[in-house]
Amino acid sequence: EVPISTSRVPPYHEDDPIWREMRAECRSDSEQEPALASYLYSTILAHKTLERALSFHLGNKLASVTFLSTQLVTLINETIMEDEWIRHAIREDIMAVRKKDPACVSYSHCLLNFKGFLALQAHRVAHRLWSTGRESLALAIQSRVSEVFHVDIHPAARIGRGILFDHATGVVVGETAVIGNNVSVLHHVTLGGTGAVGGDRHPKIGDGVLIGAGATILGPIRVGEGAKIGAGSVVLNDVPPHTTAVGNPARLVGGKGKPAEMK
Amino acid sequence: EVPISTSRVPPYHEDDPIWREMRAECRSDSEQEPALASYLYSTILAHKTLERALSFHLGNKLASVTFLSTQLVTLINETIMEDEWIRHAIREDIMAVRKKDPACVSYSHCLLNFKGFLALQAHRVAHRLWSTGRESLALAIQSRVSEVFHVDIHPAARIGRGILFDHATGVVVGETAVIGNNVSVLHHVTLGGTGAVGGDRHPKIGDGVLIGAGATILGPIRVGEGAKIGAGSVVLNDVPPHTTAVGNPARLVGGKGKPAEMK
Amino acid sequence: EVPISTSRVPPYHEDDPIWREMRAECRSDSEQEPALASYLYSTILAHKTLERALSFHLGNKLASVTFLSTQLVTLINETIMEDEWIRHAIREDIMAVRKKDPACVSYSHCLLNFKGFLALQAHRVAHRLWSTGRESLALAIQSRVSEVFHVDIHPAARIGRGILFDHATGVVVGETAVIGNNVSVLHHVTLGGTGAVGGDRHPKIGDGVLIGAGATILGPIRVGEGAKIGAGSVVLNDVPPHTTAVGNPARLVGGKGKPAEMK
Repeated sequence: EVPISTSRVPPYHEDDPIWREMRAECRSDSEQEPALASYLYSTILAHKTLERALSFHLGNKLASVTFLSTQLVTLINETIMEDEWIRHAIREDIMAVRKKDPACVSYSHCLLNFKGFLALQAHRVAHRLWSTGRESLALAIQSRVSEVFHVDIHPAARIGRGILFDHATGVVVGETAVIGNNVSVLHHVTLGGTGAVGGDRHPKIGDGVLIGAGATILGPIRVGEGAKIGAGSVVLNDVPPHTTAVGNPARLVGGKGKPAEMK
Repeated sequence: EVPISTSRVPPYHEDDPIWREMRAECRSDSEQEPALASYLYSTILAHKTLERALSFHLGNKLASVTFLSTQLVTLINETIMEDEWIRHAIREDIMAVRKKDPACVSYSHCLLNFKGFLALQAHRVAHRLWSTGRESLALAIQSRVSEVFHVDIHPAARIGRGILFDHATGVVVGETAVIGNNVSVLHHVTLGGTGAVGGDRHPKIGDGVLIGAGATILGPIRVGEGAKIGAGSVVLNDVPPHTTAVGNPARLVGGKGKPAEMK
Repeated sequence: EVPISTSRVPPYHEDDPIWREMRAECRSDSEQEPALASYLYSTILAHKTLERALSFHLGNKLASVTFLSTQLVTLINETIMEDEWIRHAIREDIMAVRKKDPACVSYSHCLLNFKGFLALQAHRVAHRLWSTGRESLALAIQSRVSEVFHVDIHPAARIGRGILFDHATGVVVGETAVIGNNVSVLHHVTLGGTGAVGGDRHPKIGDGVLIGAGATILGPIRVGEGAKIGAGSVVLNDVPPHTTAVGNPARLVGGKGKPAEMK
């Protein structure tokens, strides 16, 4: 019901303007800042595609003494290359970060430095692994993402495209949560459950929702399209579309659903 | 006063059903997912006991360029093996995670992937080091746990058994805090102090308490047995047993202590 | 306007009492705890100055597979040595942590183990790089600090001296934020913006302010000198000097500005 587009995306063209721009940024940065030249070469310029650069960077970050980077880089790249939807989502996420976050100065800045972006792409890989029956590997990736990027997204959670996880520290997204397209999620946000029972127990977030820092949204509730959740809010009930909810417990303060106090 | 059982525990038997089950899980996962086989072998299957597997995994995670993994693995294993109480607590914690967290699919998933579980076991080691006069080493471990697992527990804090730290990012537990048995603590929870003075300044949490995500409990107050603290609550006063406290500032909304608003 | 002292500081003398004391602490700790001796030697005792020890420790922590420690150690040390103000700030920060945090038992404990202190010093380096036109390098350091210490401070943010970041997990400080001198900031604190527009959009925090755990302060507002912000507060309006603000949304509960409810 939450409108995650599942229509087939057109094949990605050989001309990749974001990747072209990213490489130009890195060449310029390498000239201006020789201290970064070898780093930018190994992470971006040495690779033929955006997918390979992302896989290399992410695999190196998620690797550990017992979880080898070569293996992870290959796994991430193969998983991404099997799924055209993910390849589009990566680019829509980069564009969303660049457009919505005034602190994002370039495409390469997003790819290299934004742990929210990297955690999200790792989740996309883990979600595909989970969906194709490779649960134990998906859970191992979730765990490394939580350790390395401080973002804990269950691999079963469904997340749309054009997503901004800003700052991202402490984000938690539960197993049955769904996030639509073009959603912005600040740090310390929880999409959690309300008890120890299994089954559907996590929020469904509509398209275009903005969730402020530290907001806690609990239970299998629905946050409607275009809604805004204020920083620090605790939301335990549905939020109508295009409505703002603030406070602990959250009350509706604007939009169509304004009159009714939430309870 | 807070009822942490200090009665001597019976010697642990050679037959260790959790460890047996954990190894069976890993053998099955290795067959289904060859990409994890060498990882599961080195972290679980290569070891003779649960204690050795945990020490190896934890020591590798806490190691750094200047804090060698071999040294840490040995230190953790020796400390655990000296303290029968810890050896029981490890198993009660694993059982609590498995039982209370619907996202925990197996014992090995808990041991390998749950940073809250790993941070807690590292704390148990640090607490024993602290209690036996090895303060500087205990503080070094606390620091590495805070860096690697984002859980900052002072080594002097006393924590019971059967504990679930769910998601765990951002948990802070102060020096004079006490946590009873069978307590569940969500992420971003603070058991903190209210000022810069030393001495007893942190909360005492009774048995069976559930503390929701982002709750902040401050000062040398008492949260009674079986109480529930709502997500995002700020608690500055005692909470009676079997009572629910919610909001900022927290008020009592259920249970025996319901009538009185907290202030 | 926020009173960050920019007056030139006197040259730092060869006699460095904090560094002298720190080395004495480490020699004592090495004797009492041989397990730490080689760690304490390589991180503290092998170095000639506090600046070199800090640069070595920080560079090793921020290093990655693609961002070499040798390069980072040199960069950090050179940046610190070019800026006398930073060299004084390091010492005032250490003294503030030691004085204000009852859990800080020694100067070396602060340097070695406090991620809030280390993140702040890394920010001082990134801020100087940013201010001298080396933006891409500054942003790369910000990113590593966010990954390694879970503290996300934009390199353009201006921060005074004598600062305590206690526990520090999840702290976020935006691009146009300003923090005065002798400010204490607990974990999970956000100095954030209120929208996607650029320009001046983050809080200005006066001297001597105390910001409790989980407080979220949003927008280009002013928190006056000596104000206190309660744990979990959401602050969207100015807070007068020497006033306490608590709650979500925050209201004034003490000090000169007490009568007016914040809205």
